[in-house]
Amino acid sequence: MSTSAIRHSIFSLQQKMWRQFARRAAPTMARPSLARCFSAHGDIARGPFATVTEADIVHFRNVCSSVLTDSEAVAPYNSDWLKKYHGHSQVVLRPKTTQEVSDILKYCNERRLAVVPQGGNTGLVGGSVPVHDEVILSTGNMNVIESFDDVSGIVVCQAGCILENLDTHVGKFGYMMPLDLGAKGTCQIGGNASTNAGGLRLLRYGSLHGSILGVEAVLADGTIVDCLSTMRKDNTGYDLKQIFIGSEGTLGIITRLSILTPPRSAAVNVALVGCESFDAVKKTYVAARRHLGEILSAVEFLDRGSLDVVMSQQPDLVDPLETACPFYVLIETAGSRADHDMEKLDAYLATMMEDGHVVDGTVAQDAKQARKLFSIREDITLALCSKGYVYKYDVSIPIDDYYKIVEDMRVQLAEFDADVVGYGHLGDCNMHLNISSPSYDSDVMAAIEPFVFEWTAARRGSISAEHGIGTHKPSFLHLSKAPHAIKMMQQMKAVYDPNGILNPYKVLPKAQ
Amino acid sequence: MSTSAIRHSIFSLQQKMWRQFARRAAPTMARPSLARCFSAHGDIARGPFATVTEADIVHFRNVCSSVLTDSEAVAPYNSDWLKKYHGHSQVVLRPKTTQEVSDILKYCNERRLAVVPQGGNTGLVGGSVPVHDEVILSTGNMNVIESFDDVSGIVVCQAGCILENLDTHVGKFGYMMPLDLGAKGTCQIGGNASTNAGGLRLLRYGSLHGSILGVEAVLADGTIVDCLSTMRKDNTGYDLKQIFIGSEGTLGIITRLSILTPPRSAAVNVALVGCESFDAVKKTYVAARRHLGEILSAVEFLDRGSLDVVMSQQPDLVDPLETACPFYVLIETAGSRADHDMEKLDAYLATMMEDGHVVDGTVAQDAKQARKLFSIREDITLALCSKGYVYKYDVSIPIDDYYKIVEDMRVQLAEFDADVVGYGHLGDCNMHLNISSPSYDSDVMAAIEPFVFEWTAARRGSISAEHGIGTHKPSFLHLSKAPHAIKMMQQMKAVYDPNGILNPYKVLPKAQ
Repeated sequence: MSTSAIRHSIFSLQQKMWRQFARRAAPTMARPSLARCFSAHGDIARGPFATVTEADIVHFRNVCSSVLTDSEAVAPYNSDWLKKYHGHSQVVLRPKTTQEVSDILKYCNERRLAVVPQGGNTGLVGGSVPVHDEVILSTGNMNVIESFDDVSGIVVCQAGCILENLDTHVGKFGYMMPLDLGAKGTCQIGGNASTNAGGLRLLRYGSLHGSILGVEAVLADGTIVDCLSTMRKDNTGYDLKQIFIGSEGTLGIITRLSILTPPRSAAVNVALVGCESFDAVKKTYVAARRHLGEILSAVEFLDRGSLDVVMSQQPDLVDPLETACPFYVLIETAGSRADHDMEKLDAYLATMMEDGHVVDGTVAQDAKQARKLFSIREDITLALCSKGYVYKYDVSIPIDDYYKIVEDMRVQLAEFDADVVGYGHLGDCNMHLNISSPSYDSDVMAAIEPFVFEWTAARRGSISAEHGIGTHKPSFLHLSKAPHAIKMMQQMKAVYDPNGILNPYKVLPKAQ
Repeated sequence: MSTSAIRHSIFSLQQKMWRQFARRAAPTMARPSLARCFSAHGDIARGPFATVTEADIVHFRNVCSSVLTDSEAVAPYNSDWLKKYHGHSQVVLRPKTTQEVSDILKYCNERRLAVVPQGGNTGLVGGSVPVHDEVILSTGNMNVIESFDDVSGIVVCQAGCILENLDTHVGKFGYMMPLDLGAKGTCQIGGNASTNAGGLRLLRYGSLHGSILGVEAVLADGTIVDCLSTMRKDNTGYDLKQIFIGSEGTLGIITRLSILTPPRSAAVNVALVGCESFDAVKKTYVAARRHLGEILSAVEFLDRGSLDVVMSQQPDLVDPLETACPFYVLIETAGSRADHDMEKLDAYLATMMEDGHVVDGTVAQDAKQARKLFSIREDITLALCSKGYVYKYDVSIPIDDYYKIVEDMRVQLAEFDADVVGYGHLGDCNMHLNISSPSYDSDVMAAIEPFVFEWTAARRGSISAEHGIGTHKPSFLHLSKAPHAIKMMQQMKAVYDPNGILNPYKVLPKAQ
């Protein structure tokens, strides 16, 4: 094919009527209501903590503006949104201020009451769900956006602010939050920080270890730690805020944050392209970094199985490309000049077609179409749940082996009634490996774990890319971290939370 | 003036012959050779450490590939490049491998010998210079670039690699180091990481807390901590590498690193503009973020005094603009398409002229001219030294007060023979406040400190933006950090270096 013909085909591709996608199915799709006889927390022995008494409740009502003890009111806090992890807490505390958090923790520490901090409760590894009868400290009422500086783009807010609300707020001033994830309408920024959430735009804006400028946190003994700097550069001693980012509430509870937000891009383009092989996917990705450079904002991947499962749950959804492909790449650009960006994207797509890496593709013609293309990617998680039980894995793998985990897992599970699909943040080498079977099957589980973690560790990948450890993976932590590193973590925990009341049973394996 | 006339003036500005700048004076400019009777370390009592014996030297020769004890060979390691800080070490160890570092530290820890880690020794706060007779552990021989992945852009190297060498190496594959600073030809990446170096491009590529993916470090007792992940996403337990970044070698010695490098931009443009007021500077900066968005890579500031001092040291240097201005802003863009970038820059500069924020300006026509414009900014530090004694401060200040520190300091020092100039990384609110007097004057010093730190703290700025604490600022740390935060740092130090052998006297005030 001549270059001019290919260029023509790309242009006609863009100018053709973008096919009507079905309305996002999420709001109407029922959550799975699997009556399970187990909690994915597994068999974890209760620690040597006190049990909440009536006197404790009276005290909590004195120091905290909202205390829930009614079993129906407490129930939603006792399990995660996928209803996979279940706890048995009797009390939920919903403080409004840092001082309330401090008063609560000081008391719990003295009384040896265990505490589980909970944000939007959208995690996938059980980190925010009680294991036994821990006191639940929900940050949901700490939702004040305290300030926004429209020169520096720095927002200061309480930990319970919902990510999407923050994004809407800073959007009014022409800025955006540096992270975006499917749960944005529910997850809270304090939880995002505590779990070091990654999501769709890490490729462009980096991790929260870079974007978060300051943190205020409360230690187990009630000490309020003020590291709420609003300066981009602040080299005054150890960067303590970093230890609260990604430690899943086991070292302290984040109460306030200051975050650097990037300017919102005037022009956003989204393209979905199909590839015949994973090698072509890899070349498409590498070329996107070269051609699209500074405007590239997301490179997402899904295999045909992932698309099929969304389509099976959304009958009105038309196959987005005319050519069915085994692999798809979703590419987003964000820049300040629409004409420049479209020119770069056109040139890139033309080259990809010319080189044969891409066999079909479509470019969203407006923001609505762009959202719809992204919604296919975002709907995979929920669509999978409707197929039965889902075994979810979130790993980082060097790009050459990125898809091989899916293929190898299919071989591993050949004898079972189980489907294996792979999708994820290709630009970050982050694979979401998902296996579904009609119902929970301990034989399937035994075939998956520890296979998946050992497979990943053998390639120096990470057994948790962005979801964290929670109660799911402490026993596998040694596959991604050396013994002395785990010892250092345990030492840090012992110093800052000597009674171990903060989110026990999570992240760290029991000290030997 | 009509828009078309302004556009014309901008275009003619670009097309005019760029005036010939003098050759960079740095290589020929003599370093100040001030015979001082004091070390800026001040009066710090020696800690309860052992003294190096002949037997220790024998042991060091057994475990370390290079041991210097000749006083002439050791001398350069006993003071910093500005000859401001002076130590009295008798021995320099130059290991080649992590194992050697481990063997050295294990021995020193058992013997209670204090150790100062030293990279390129380009710091400005005395952090890498011995205070008394600490053993100097130089990473200069640990200069192997171990691997570079040209798909992910991740480089793995030893700590002693010189920043510029790394940049040259990854440049061959179309990538660049995510930081750039004046000392790049001498500073080492391990020192950059240990001091969380900022520099010119933090605005675009963020801090090293985000760019560094993995660290291998050796603790005081010789334990080798392997957190050398090469994955962008790795949420497996506490992010231990972060505690080594910016802790100035007081918690461990970084031996190897993996770093994410961004693609090198095909097109780089540099413009120098002049402004009549600091308010115009601020507007010029804010507009640069809006107009230049994703291609903006540096926004540097210098006042007329800073330019004058460079010109006074470089007689051939012609004033870069026809109009002498009190303030200058240096703007760099880096993008993937030269035509697109130039169009954005033209539109931006035209708007700035039209709005009256910018009164004159010049745009470099090629890379050589761009380097020359940048060299004015980079030469300020050295040019100042030639004027006598320089009192150097590196603070972060909210932008509205960014230049006020210079004005207030001039008032504060009105009665002295002292010049006050300000320059720095405007895009990060990072001000380099420099005061020069013919020779060191304790009265001038008493008028500057603690005034400058208290002034900064009162505005919730940072008393150390990027240079760190070293021995210069431990006694002022409380102005930027609350008592419980300092206590947390001291607790961390006590856990990981219980004998306090690693870089004693630095960063932390003595525990009460």
